[in-house]
Amino acid sequence: MNTFGRQFRITTFGESHGRAIGVTIDGCPAGVPFSLEKIQEELDRRKPGQSKITTQRKEADSVEVLSGVFEDVTTGTPIALLIWNQDQRSKDYSHIKDVFRPSHADYTYHTKYGVRDYRGGGRSSARETAARVAAGAVAKQFLEAMGISFHAYVSEVGDIKVSEDYSTLDFSEIEKNIVRCPDAAKAEQMIELIDQVRKDRDTIGGIVSCVVSGVPAGLGEPVFDRLNAELGKAMLSINACKGFEYGSGFAGTKLRGSQHNDAFYTEVDGTIRTKTNLSGGIQGGISNGEDIYFKTAFKPVATIMVDQDSIDKEGNEAVVSGKGRHDPCVVPRAVPIVEAMAALTIADMMIRANSNRLDQLK
Amino acid sequence: MNTFGRQFRITTFGESHGRAIGVTIDGCPAGVPFSLEKIQEELDRRKPGQSKITTQRKEADSVEVLSGVFEDVTTGTPIALLIWNQDQRSKDYSHIKDVFRPSHADYTYHTKYGVRDYRGGGRSSARETAARVAAGAVAKQFLEAMGISFHAYVSEVGDIKVSEDYSTLDFSEIEKNIVRCPDAAKAEQMIELIDQVRKDRDTIGGIVSCVVSGVPAGLGEPVFDRLNAELGKAMLSINACKGFEYGSGFAGTKLRGSQHNDAFYTEVDGTIRTKTNLSGGIQGGISNGEDIYFKTAFKPVATIMVDQDSIDKEGNEAVVSGKGRHDPCVVPRAVPIVEAMAALTIADMMIRANSNRLDQLK
Amino acid sequence: MNTFGRQFRITTFGESHGRAIGVTIDGCPAGVPFSLEKIQEELDRRKPGQSKITTQRKEADSVEVLSGVFEDVTTGTPIALLIWNQDQRSKDYSHIKDVFRPSHADYTYHTKYGVRDYRGGGRSSARETAARVAAGAVAKQFLEAMGISFHAYVSEVGDIKVSEDYSTLDFSEIEKNIVRCPDAAKAEQMIELIDQVRKDRDTIGGIVSCVVSGVPAGLGEPVFDRLNAELGKAMLSINACKGFEYGSGFAGTKLRGSQHNDAFYTEVDGTIRTKTNLSGGIQGGISNGEDIYFKTAFKPVATIMVDQDSIDKEGNEAVVSGKGRHDPCVVPRAVPIVEAMAALTIADMMIRANSNRLDQLK
Amino acid sequence: MNTFGRQFRITTFGESHGRAIGVTIDGCPAGVPFSLEKIQEELDRRKPGQSKITTQRKEADSVEVLSGVFEDVTTGTPIALLIWNQDQRSKDYSHIKDVFRPSHADYTYHTKYGVRDYRGGGRSSARETAARVAAGAVAKQFLEAMGISFHAYVSEVGDIKVSEDYSTLDFSEIEKNIVRCPDAAKAEQMIELIDQVRKDRDTIGGIVSCVVSGVPAGLGEPVFDRLNAELGKAMLSINACKGFEYGSGFAGTKLRGSQHNDAFYTEVDGTIRTKTNLSGGIQGGISNGEDIYFKTAFKPVATIMVDQDSIDKEGNEAVVSGKGRHDPCVVPRAVPIVEAMAALTIADMMIRANSNRLDQLK
Repeated sequence: MNTFGRQFRITTFGESHGRAIGVTIDGCPAGVPFSLEKIQEELDRRKPGQSKITTQRKEADSVEVLSGVFEDVTTGTPIALLIWNQDQRSKDYSHIKDVFRPSHADYTYHTKYGVRDYRGGGRSSARETAARVAAGAVAKQFLEAMGISFHAYVSEVGDIKVSEDYSTLDFSEIEKNIVRCPDAAKAEQMIELIDQVRKDRDTIGGIVSCVVSGVPAGLGEPVFDRLNAELGKAMLSINACKGFEYGSGFAGTKLRGSQHNDAFYTEVDGTIRTKTNLSGGIQGGISNGEDIYFKTAFKPVATIMVDQDSIDKEGNEAVVSGKGRHDPCVVPRAVPIVEAMAALTIADMMIRANSNRLDQLK
Repeated sequence: MNTFGRQFRITTFGESHGRAIGVTIDGCPAGVPFSLEKIQEELDRRKPGQSKITTQRKEADSVEVLSGVFEDVTTGTPIALLIWNQDQRSKDYSHIKDVFRPSHADYTYHTKYGVRDYRGGGRSSARETAARVAAGAVAKQFLEAMGISFHAYVSEVGDIKVSEDYSTLDFSEIEKNIVRCPDAAKAEQMIELIDQVRKDRDTIGGIVSCVVSGVPAGLGEPVFDRLNAELGKAMLSINACKGFEYGSGFAGTKLRGSQHNDAFYTEVDGTIRTKTNLSGGIQGGISNGEDIYFKTAFKPVATIMVDQDSIDKEGNEAVVSGKGRHDPCVVPRAVPIVEAMAALTIADMMIRANSNRLDQLK
Repeated sequence: MNTFGRQFRITTFGESHGRAIGVTIDGCPAGVPFSLEKIQEELDRRKPGQSKITTQRKEADSVEVLSGVFEDVTTGTPIALLIWNQDQRSKDYSHIKDVFRPSHADYTYHTKYGVRDYRGGGRSSARETAARVAAGAVAKQFLEAMGISFHAYVSEVGDIKVSEDYSTLDFSEIEKNIVRCPDAAKAEQMIELIDQVRKDRDTIGGIVSCVVSGVPAGLGEPVFDRLNAELGKAMLSINACKGFEYGSGFAGTKLRGSQHNDAFYTEVDGTIRTKTNLSGGIQGGISNGEDIYFKTAFKPVATIMVDQDSIDKEGNEAVVSGKGRHDPCVVPRAVPIVEAMAALTIADMMIRANSNRLDQLK
Repeated sequence: MNTFGRQFRITTFGESHGRAIGVTIDGCPAGVPFSLEKIQEELDRRKPGQSKITTQRKEADSVEVLSGVFEDVTTGTPIALLIWNQDQRSKDYSHIKDVFRPSHADYTYHTKYGVRDYRGGGRSSARETAARVAAGAVAKQFLEAMGISFHAYVSEVGDIKVSEDYSTLDFSEIEKNIVRCPDAAKAEQMIELIDQVRKDRDTIGGIVSCVVSGVPAGLGEPVFDRLNAELGKAMLSINACKGFEYGSGFAGTKLRGSQHNDAFYTEVDGTIRTKTNLSGGIQGGISNGEDIYFKTAFKPVATIMVDQDSIDKEGNEAVVSGKGRHDPCVVPRAVPIVEAMAALTIADMMIRANSNRLDQLK
């Protein structure tokens, strides 16, 4: 359903070209400092039209808060955030009213529900992720108060790849270029590639990497709600996401146990650490206090600017025409979405881990 | 928590060396033919000691049914399945009572709960997956009645890889070799590699691929509980799983949209199909009627037969000795687990999709 | 949390004197005819200021729909409904900022959350029930399409009681008087009593009875989520509700089994019925096709227009002054709330009962 | 479904005459002292055949623990408890195989599921409550460690009523008589009445009152999951329960606000208390630190020892013969069930209330 999280729980609503999109956040603890500006900043990172390599759709994505906050502090009651849709241009979409666009959700929604709001993809549009980013910004404010920080970045676009380990990267570089890659040289190549793809009226995929620092040991629930499983679900719920791996990931399958095991040691202050971190900060589904890191694969956006053969609702042949606005590559705008979903996951698991032992309840 | 699924819902219990492990299945529709033999068959595929490339621990894994079945048919009430533990040999594990084994869950459980049943990993042991396989075998019987089938197989061990597309493979070959790979030549190489690794007292990782056929269009729930997100969570909840991808997966990120889009066409009988299936049978998070396929990455097992440096509960240096029994490679036994988790996911989504439209309720 | 229902699921938000209140409805099947007018009609039955025996607070309670509806039909995506608050008069409430009003939620919210939005009771105000009534009106439209109808009415105010069995009452009389009692003579006495209580600057309690007709047999889930248990929870979640009984209720405890059992018989058309209905339409927690009926007890409203001794946040003695606006008796306005919660419960159980048997899934 | 609770969560399974009944408890914090003896004691209070006024069915109801406990302490993993059925005497029930017993769940289960285990009522039998009592005994051990205690007792049987307020009763008297009424004189009358009813081959209803002491302020969640709503659902989920009221209950509807409000005051040690407790320890759905008290109405048991007219599965007239064993009055055995459900509810709400404020998470 349209709810994510169990204890820190959000419910999003809204269609691409409906009146508004929004989210309610339930279970946020009382007493968290609340800044609407910080939410707007995150939305600005996701919004369309921010650079030449994103869609030119115009949406201010101004967020309002309707409830759950009093005198700049959360009250423990549901926080409702609302974003009005501005650029509704419904006429743009009449040409796809009865046609199923290839690799979009038109056909599956139609089959599932019998009816669908075809305007701009309706509910299946990635516009819904704005509501997630808004909610994620609240989760971030909660977790910031607990010393937890999030850094997502573009690590691959097509064949261009940042090969350095995350620990050698300078995260302060991420927002310095429009593709959100901390390696300036690679960023330039990526931008060039995306621009070329855009000129080809085509699209291309990529990978977003994410590092979460400051997560205490003990988050994650055996046996099904492992931290990695919840993070994986969160990422795979983002539009266009096709894969998720954490720690050593797929490459780790080629290693031997003797190479892969992370040896424990004790720091001088008594902190228990591991010498390597192929576990990606998660062991047995539970955080171990090391950095959590993972990768998320995004396919090329299905909307391309060339005509494609398809069928209509009656099964007759039809052409999907390549007009309108589109993102040639989704990953630069996916960066804040990945962070938001990570923050929402960690916030939820933080609260769920708060009652593991009798002594936590006293 | 220890529950998976929302409408077809299982709850597992039991520790590796406790008295028993088991599962309750809630929400299975009434009227499903129930065969205890079929459950036992699946358990036999997972059980230890089945071949030279698996652990030599001895467990019969005989399953009993305690409730929810009457005259060989499910009644709609909870189905409880129980497996008694036989080979408890607790003394084997006294040497790890106070030591944290590298890349195991010892440290994280200890930190999270304060106490832990250290015998054989307790709850964190992959022994818990026997309960999942038992439950999955019930889900399979339910889905078989709906025309849905599951085929998982080992597609990679270390560097040895089946490179053919799944559609060219003969699934009837899978169970003909002990590594469960449908390519007989590759299977032989994999077995050889695993056997070498075993002799080296080491372990190695691998990949399990899975194909689900016969799934009708319409399964999966926007926006968070997409079919791919639920499948991903299911797989990532399996011990040692480090990654998940479906359809074109990580490789798909390198493609352009014009290469990646799956064109629709109509078959002579009116069925709507796609010419290619890079979507992996899922579009917009909802099944489209094509085969669903995905890959699951497993790291090398953390238990190796050599001594490793580590620390104890007090943070002092300690040695984890390399004795006991172990799986040199987990993927052959993971095959039925992957199928079970896939079946449990599809069963749940099948029921959840049963009330999408008003006309389904009349 | 702020969510009700499992499959037909609502989440409400908003404080009494915040910017807006609202609700998202998730899980409403696609294809249900949607009328905003019908929602407004239900809200008008609940709104303040509708008669001399209700509070004189002025709120138009105009409802807007933000999502989930396309061309006057539900689409299966979340339906968001919004009501802006108009009469915010925050200054009215500064006098209770630091004082705990007797038998209100001031003290418990303060203790639970540390902070609270004290304006008009904030989240604890019965104003939140407007969001429930709006959502309930959607549930009613869904259930109307299934042939199910709801009739709640005031059956007691203080000592004045409608003693006739519900089956002899004319439900079309309910809305003909401002107290919503189908017995015109008793209605007059009730209005007189409430008016007297109002002049005394006091309040009084009462009972709302409810009858649900047309519910098919088979709704309700063993063993915890019985239909009566879910209805009971729904009613007890309404502000000021102190008790719930269904069928023979508390009075039934005085009967013998031989008097209480409802004998089955078969109608000429083959329908299975019971001769009596002390079961209240529910047996073993599952509807049996007879009318469902129950009673809900409401205490006298805690806000009275006389000064009361109390304490402030520091525990010091303080006086709660009796000024402002209040409802002398809550039951007339509770009638649409009871119907709404009943509709939401039945809608949820209807969907949950849609997958009980294998043959329902084919 | 067959799960109760959100964070302290139980799932029961088993039919009256199946092989076993049982329960898994998920979410119990680690570190709670675990006594199997205490669980058995509670089961002995519920078991059949314990006195002349209960059914003479013979069941030892011996409980075993299968998981979740290590060295007499809970580990945070699921606790599975199992009770084998002994007195299965299936032949006793062949006479009801095809007949619907009046006011039982035979007809509704048959309609809902298509099939049913008719032996002794199958899943709809009150035998299932043994699993709840076992789980409740674990919840009690958890809550005992938090200073919370439970006292349920029989306050009414038919017309015989304990009229004193709970606060004047001596709870140590409850277990001194077989009807579990703290007023010895009334207990004698109740026993006499039940014995007479038994000789008449009939049954009679009654009321169980319950007092929970030591509950801290702050438990219960606005707006739907109020403590009173969750308690109400818990009680209404018990077989034969027809009504629930807390605090002033139905009688409170006759009072005026000026009589009903509970005035706050501060004790010398600074504790905030109320002078009266018509609120029943719950205000705005949240506990306020006073005793929580409520009443639960039980109808006369439907199984009576006289022949009754009914119908069979085909709708033909049939006679339900009055033979077998039965409880003439359910309330003495309901006492431990009410306590168990209260304990399970409070345990769940205790954990859910553990993350209300940011400062609880640090």
